[in-house]
Amino acid sequence: MPTIKDVARRAGVSLGTASRVLSGGGNTSPKARSQVQAAAAELNYIANGPARSLRSTRTNVLGLLVSDIRNPFFSEIAHAAEREAMRLGYTVLLANANEDETQADEYLRIFASQRIDGLLLAPQGPASPQLESMLKSGLPVVLLNRLVEGLDAPSFATDNSQGVGLVLDWLQTRGHRDVAFVGGPNSISTGAERMAAYRAGRESHGINTDDAFIDAGDFLADGAERAMMRILERGKRPTAVFGANGPTTLGALRALRWVLGASEASRVEVVSFDDLEWFEFVSPAISAVRHDAAAIGTAGVTGLLELIAGQPVASQRISTTFIDRSV
Amino acid sequence: MPTIKDVARRAGVSLGTASRVLSGGGNTSPKARSQVQAAAAELNYIANGPARSLRSTRTNVLGLLVSDIRNPFFSEIAHAAEREAMRLGYTVLLANANEDETQADEYLRIFASQRIDGLLLAPQGPASPQLESMLKSGLPVVLLNRLVEGLDAPSFATDNSQGVGLVLDWLQTRGHRDVAFVGGPNSISTGAERMAAYRAGRESHGINTDDAFIDAGDFLADGAERAMMRILERGKRPTAVFGANGPTTLGALRALRWVLGASEASRVEVVSFDDLEWFEFVSPAISAVRHDAAAIGTAGVTGLLELIAGQPVASQRISTTFIDRSV
Repeated sequence: MPTIKDVARRAGVSLGTASRVLSGGGNTSPKARSQVQAAAAELNYIANGPARSLRSTRTNVLGLLVSDIRNPFFSEIAHAAEREAMRLGYTVLLANANEDETQADEYLRIFASQRIDGLLLAPQGPASPQLESMLKSGLPVVLLNRLVEGLDAPSFATDNSQGVGLVLDWLQTRGHRDVAFVGGPNSISTGAERMAAYRAGRESHGINTDDAFIDAGDFLADGAERAMMRILERGKRPTAVFGANGPTTLGALRALRWVLGASEASRVEVVSFDDLEWFEFVSPAISAVRHDAAAIGTAGVTGLLELIAGQPVASQRISTTFIDRSV
Repeated sequence: MPTIKDVARRAGVSLGTASRVLSGGGNTSPKARSQVQAAAAELNYIANGPARSLRSTRTNVLGLLVSDIRNPFFSEIAHAAEREAMRLGYTVLLANANEDETQADEYLRIFASQRIDGLLLAPQGPASPQLESMLKSGLPVVLLNRLVEGLDAPSFATDNSQGVGLVLDWLQTRGHRDVAFVGGPNSISTGAERMAAYRAGRESHGINTDDAFIDAGDFLADGAERAMMRILERGKRPTAVFGANGPTTLGALRALRWVLGASEASRVEVVSFDDLEWFEFVSPAISAVRHDAAAIGTAGVTGLLELIAGQPVASQRISTTFIDRSV
């Protein structure tokens, strides 16, 4: 594990300066601060200050790092986790990665030096050295919704292939053949699993297997809008669009309206992985896979408290339901 | 300020037990834990443990307590505050009051015992003794969006009466006379200010001054739905509905569709304080006052860092714009 000496060397500052920056004490220049913080980030340095000596002390505070707090799915997970934690005498501090690996690592570093008893984590992509260090340091961690290959932490996640199966069945029943699929990043388990399940099931559900109907964004609205634009720019005119999460569906809808106009766009049926509160008000109403954010948040807290108590915890896959809003 | 002895007495446990619970160390029974925590909450006890001795140490971590993380206005504030803080070398830990004063106080207590340099707070109602204690302890605090009468902390808030003025002008231009107003709690400054501005401006804008057209919820969707139901149950049939925040507008819309049916409901024009990402997709599209969550979050962080640096900070009112989606 990197030491404060490594950080000082990397930052090109004295040991005293690095120490002052990392402990937050004394006067340091903004330049030294940013150099030392950058070096600490690059080396995945975990503060070894006064807070670490408190690790043996329970605080009844849990950390929760979500992928995107503006995504209602994650704000719902956060809300449910917090209620369950409160019920059990714990409180939850929340941090937002904004679908960004670097920002996620920054918060992992903060949580490592704060006084938390355990961490609920919706990870960004594969395991970072920062995350590996935290697990090695003995902090109890559970994963929410997204998995990380090879990481030794129990997970509480949506059954993505079951959920995509419900969408495929619905698309077939509605007679759609030219379906556009707007996915998420392949580096995130939910992005990869939903895309794989969709590709695997297309043909048997009578859906066009032309890959020009498929594109992927970053699970945020703007990236999904661009992905949908690319599909339309390839000259594809789908009769249905499947968005791989809530913000993705929003972005796809914007692109459809922008390119086709409101009237033409309203002839395209839209279906979403993630049910949002406003889908019933759109014309035509948007059907959706509802995954149970509340169940994931609640099960995650229960699992984490079992881990903290030293008990073995098994991973869970949580089933989805389908909300059919077609007439 | 209450001491740990007061907490032990109130909880009916020994001083040793109270101390073990509050410091998180040693073995304590679940019953003792809940008794001590309840007593600490009732007395607004602020932990005096090891973390307090770290107050002189800077952590570059800010606390942010929002009113309702599922309200996009607050998740947007959180997102903006976090980005601005990151840019300036700080990170933000987030907590969610869920529009609940008790839960807000619980998080204030957590933040008081965590290692944060300052607090951004969207308060629930009037100042609690817990909040007063924190200010007295010297923790820098700024208020976001909501004000607290008589509290010595700078605030960064939407100009509510200017925003309501924009809605009144629009209602008049659209020729509405029978307008339903669904407000928020009078105990929260935004609820009180929006209601007062609406009442004050009704008559001069040609709007029916019958108070049976007015009701209020809790700024959450379910409470607003019930408030809108009460207006409709009084036999009032508005031609326009004005929701006093985003979740309130959602709840009002649900009640309209439920009572009148989708077709009849679509003849009622809806206008909202808070612009939500899906308002453009509803038929008819919902017009809205857009208050600048990003500006509030960013200005709040700047102000808090100035406070932390010992500089004087002036409160700001931030102007709104109106998004007219009527045809």
